[in-house]
Amino acid sequence: MSIESGAELQRDQAGRLRHLLTLEGLTRDELQHLLDLAQFYVRVPGELPARDQSLWGRTVANLFFEPSTRTRVSFELAAKRLGADVVNLDMQSSSRVKGETVLDTIYTLQAMLVDVFVMRDAEPGLPAYVSAHVAPHVSVLNAGEAHLSHPTQGLLDVLTIRQRKGEVRNLSVAIVGDIRHSRVARSTSRALLTLGVGELRLVSPASLAPEPGELEGARRHHSLAEGVAGADVVMALRIQRERMADADTVDPETFYREWGVTAENLRGARPDAIVMHPGPMNRGVEITSEVADGAQSAIRQQVTNGVAVRMAVLATIVRNVQERNVEAGRRAG
Amino acid sequence: MSIESGAELQRDQAGRLRHLLTLEGLTRDELQHLLDLAQFYVRVPGELPARDQSLWGRTVANLFFEPSTRTRVSFELAAKRLGADVVNLDMQSSSRVKGETVLDTIYTLQAMLVDVFVMRDAEPGLPAYVSAHVAPHVSVLNAGEAHLSHPTQGLLDVLTIRQRKGEVRNLSVAIVGDIRHSRVARSTSRALLTLGVGELRLVSPASLAPEPGELEGARRHHSLAEGVAGADVVMALRIQRERMADADTVDPETFYREWGVTAENLRGARPDAIVMHPGPMNRGVEITSEVADGAQSAIRQQVTNGVAVRMAVLATIVRNVQERNVEAGRRAG
Amino acid sequence: MSIESGAELQRDQAGRLRHLLTLEGLTRDELQHLLDLAQFYVRVPGELPARDQSLWGRTVANLFFEPSTRTRVSFELAAKRLGADVVNLDMQSSSRVKGETVLDTIYTLQAMLVDVFVMRDAEPGLPAYVSAHVAPHVSVLNAGEAHLSHPTQGLLDVLTIRQRKGEVRNLSVAIVGDIRHSRVARSTSRALLTLGVGELRLVSPASLAPEPGELEGARRHHSLAEGVAGADVVMALRIQRERMADADTVDPETFYREWGVTAENLRGARPDAIVMHPGPMNRGVEITSEVADGAQSAIRQQVTNGVAVRMAVLATIVRNVQERNVEAGRRAG
Repeated sequence: MSIESGAELQRDQAGRLRHLLTLEGLTRDELQHLLDLAQFYVRVPGELPARDQSLWGRTVANLFFEPSTRTRVSFELAAKRLGADVVNLDMQSSSRVKGETVLDTIYTLQAMLVDVFVMRDAEPGLPAYVSAHVAPHVSVLNAGEAHLSHPTQGLLDVLTIRQRKGEVRNLSVAIVGDIRHSRVARSTSRALLTLGVGELRLVSPASLAPEPGELEGARRHHSLAEGVAGADVVMALRIQRERMADADTVDPETFYREWGVTAENLRGARPDAIVMHPGPMNRGVEITSEVADGAQSAIRQQVTNGVAVRMAVLATIVRNVQERNVEAGRRAG
Repeated sequence: MSIESGAELQRDQAGRLRHLLTLEGLTRDELQHLLDLAQFYVRVPGELPARDQSLWGRTVANLFFEPSTRTRVSFELAAKRLGADVVNLDMQSSSRVKGETVLDTIYTLQAMLVDVFVMRDAEPGLPAYVSAHVAPHVSVLNAGEAHLSHPTQGLLDVLTIRQRKGEVRNLSVAIVGDIRHSRVARSTSRALLTLGVGELRLVSPASLAPEPGELEGARRHHSLAEGVAGADVVMALRIQRERMADADTVDPETFYREWGVTAENLRGARPDAIVMHPGPMNRGVEITSEVADGAQSAIRQQVTNGVAVRMAVLATIVRNVQERNVEAGRRAG
Repeated sequence: MSIESGAELQRDQAGRLRHLLTLEGLTRDELQHLLDLAQFYVRVPGELPARDQSLWGRTVANLFFEPSTRTRVSFELAAKRLGADVVNLDMQSSSRVKGETVLDTIYTLQAMLVDVFVMRDAEPGLPAYVSAHVAPHVSVLNAGEAHLSHPTQGLLDVLTIRQRKGEVRNLSVAIVGDIRHSRVARSTSRALLTLGVGELRLVSPASLAPEPGELEGARRHHSLAEGVAGADVVMALRIQRERMADADTVDPETFYREWGVTAENLRGARPDAIVMHPGPMNRGVEITSEVADGAQSAIRQQVTNGVAVRMAVLATIVRNVQERNVEAGRRAG
């Protein structure tokens, strides 16, 4: 299932977003709208979280075929703070005990009146596949798909940049590290390119660069110094050993020496540059603690924005489905 | 612990249902009443789920000694949509870590003011055993007990038949497959017989027939063609390999060839016959996808009815306990 | 990290309790206040649980590095009945899948606007360590720390004694069994000593006595008969095999013969003495079923009090943080 098909599959007949499978195909306006709504939901730690009843009476099921407590909790809190009922299914242990197919699990939950499936999988294709089979009132949110796509992470990265550095068209953003295996790099790059980022640099060893032809509009660098020179934003990535055919080819110490984001390397960037990382961090591999916990770090703000972005996406998707239902009812009546 | 004792144990001194351990001993009126209330809670996918506050302030604990995500989620959503607090305990992994007995776990949760225990176990006897020990205001719901009993499944099957084919006394129902190991077959048969089903046929190879003397009033067939001939309802069962002493005696391919519900076999039934399956399905063993996903299938409707039936049972049990409390208070005062 | 540092760390600059790490350093008035509030939340089984909105809009995360379904559920219900959102993280299986540090997990959850961390760990030091790093509006509740501390258990034990036997200064309390490895013995003793218990006896074989110098004010006994003679309260402890360097040194049968609390041994205590156990019980090792389930047993009441005590602690901590926030805002404004 190609990324393009995801871009089409995620809209209803009237063109409204009813799933979020990928950031491919989203317009600048759509991205801005989601970011504005997310901003509305942002609270700083110490304040009570934003809360409304946009998902009152709705049911959200978290289906994680790949474990991720932090992302699951982020979606869970986003849904609960919008008034939804949430059920968590650990698909690793429970799903296939009795040999049920994924689609039967989905149909079963749909018949229990689940409205939204939040899905994460290590393999490509599942979110699009499921979205092509669910009923018209049911939505699928991609919470991480292989190395391909992690749309809410892309949105939260852009929201963080916008909060700290303003509009992206004036900015130079460097994404550093294991780009080849990173769904974060792909989704964040897509959002930045659609929003007309000033300059996007993909900075990695040749062996971890994206496929040829991917992410047109970005410039590739194979030197860290060159890649971060003058950048406004330096985003380190997690090394995705679990997605490497031969994980031993990357030695953490060697990687750190050449590609780790350190205070020293950062000196080449703009003095007011911010540093980001999607987490969970391998401290001392992709990034030093000095930088991760330092004044330029926006890493915790990314996490806070993550809940806000997921609230914005959930509220938007559910409202779009509701609108569609009203229209369908009007046509039928 | 015999089934009969379950039938007695599940009533309070005034004869009200305070547990649901088995469908044995429930009267036609009681079944009708539960089905009518369940019907009140039914919503079609696309509508908001039914929701009220019948369980406001109550706490429901799901104790699954045998894993079943789908049934656990069905009970969890039923309880949440009635306003209850729900806690899930994975009894496989967590319960016996410290060697606590089941009854101590129950007493502990009861002391935390849990009102309802929803229990599933691969062994027989636990729900009745627990119900004999809990306090008078606490209820036990059997969510699947060995090969013996699965009362809410029996109710949802009958509700589905009633919705699609009308009153059961005019109908011929064929239950097909591994009847010997099926708690579903036993509970559904019991409900159908009590409601005066026109004809009940238990269709299986001799090796998978129920014990001699079981389910009086049903006719046994050892030919699929003969068993489904003219039937209004054909219910396929899951092969319960996990409950077979020698699971290798049933070869999936052989079983499918002789006992699988296929479009071809179905031609012998009435043209407007419906097809059911309790799930999760072994597609290509008990049933073909063509039939499971076809126009005659009521399988997803069964799942939707499952939540409604569980809401009806929870609301009824809790109301009965409340009535008993009021009376006990009056006597005491 | 010493216990003393926990006593200091758990207060804000104005001296208010913002964490609960240990009962060390709590004044008699503070303990009384927590116990009084807990008493306000106590309901007997059969009543609806107490419920208010003290934690409305707040988020509580249960982080259990050591498994304990019963304690996790007790905290979960306490938080839900105060209106909080609750997320459960099984830190054994999920946390370290991707090698994230504990502190990064905490920072991540804090950035998602989690207000309270409930933590249990088999190693000493984690609650204090975390409390030293979280933001000023975030609280840490110690739900069991190695052999050192289990403050809510200490409170619920004292609450139970107060309910059944009145003020502790008139009472003789005997704690019996594996005191050396028991966090319960340490926290309960601390609370009793602060409240001026009449007499506190630590009754154990020499090999399971506390360290020399620990728990000054208590008297040590190495004979069960002598230790329980004339006691008002006999509290049996769980044998903590999992915390023993050489677990084989304690043979259950030998232990039972010499240190098990039986009806016979209990005859030496006062006739109206109560018997307690923190659970889960090893029946037939530390205590007989006859005693555990007998008329003198207060064991289930301890469990009921556990939820009430946790509600009182959560409500107090959150109110203290709120007061601090208001003052901080006033100073800033």
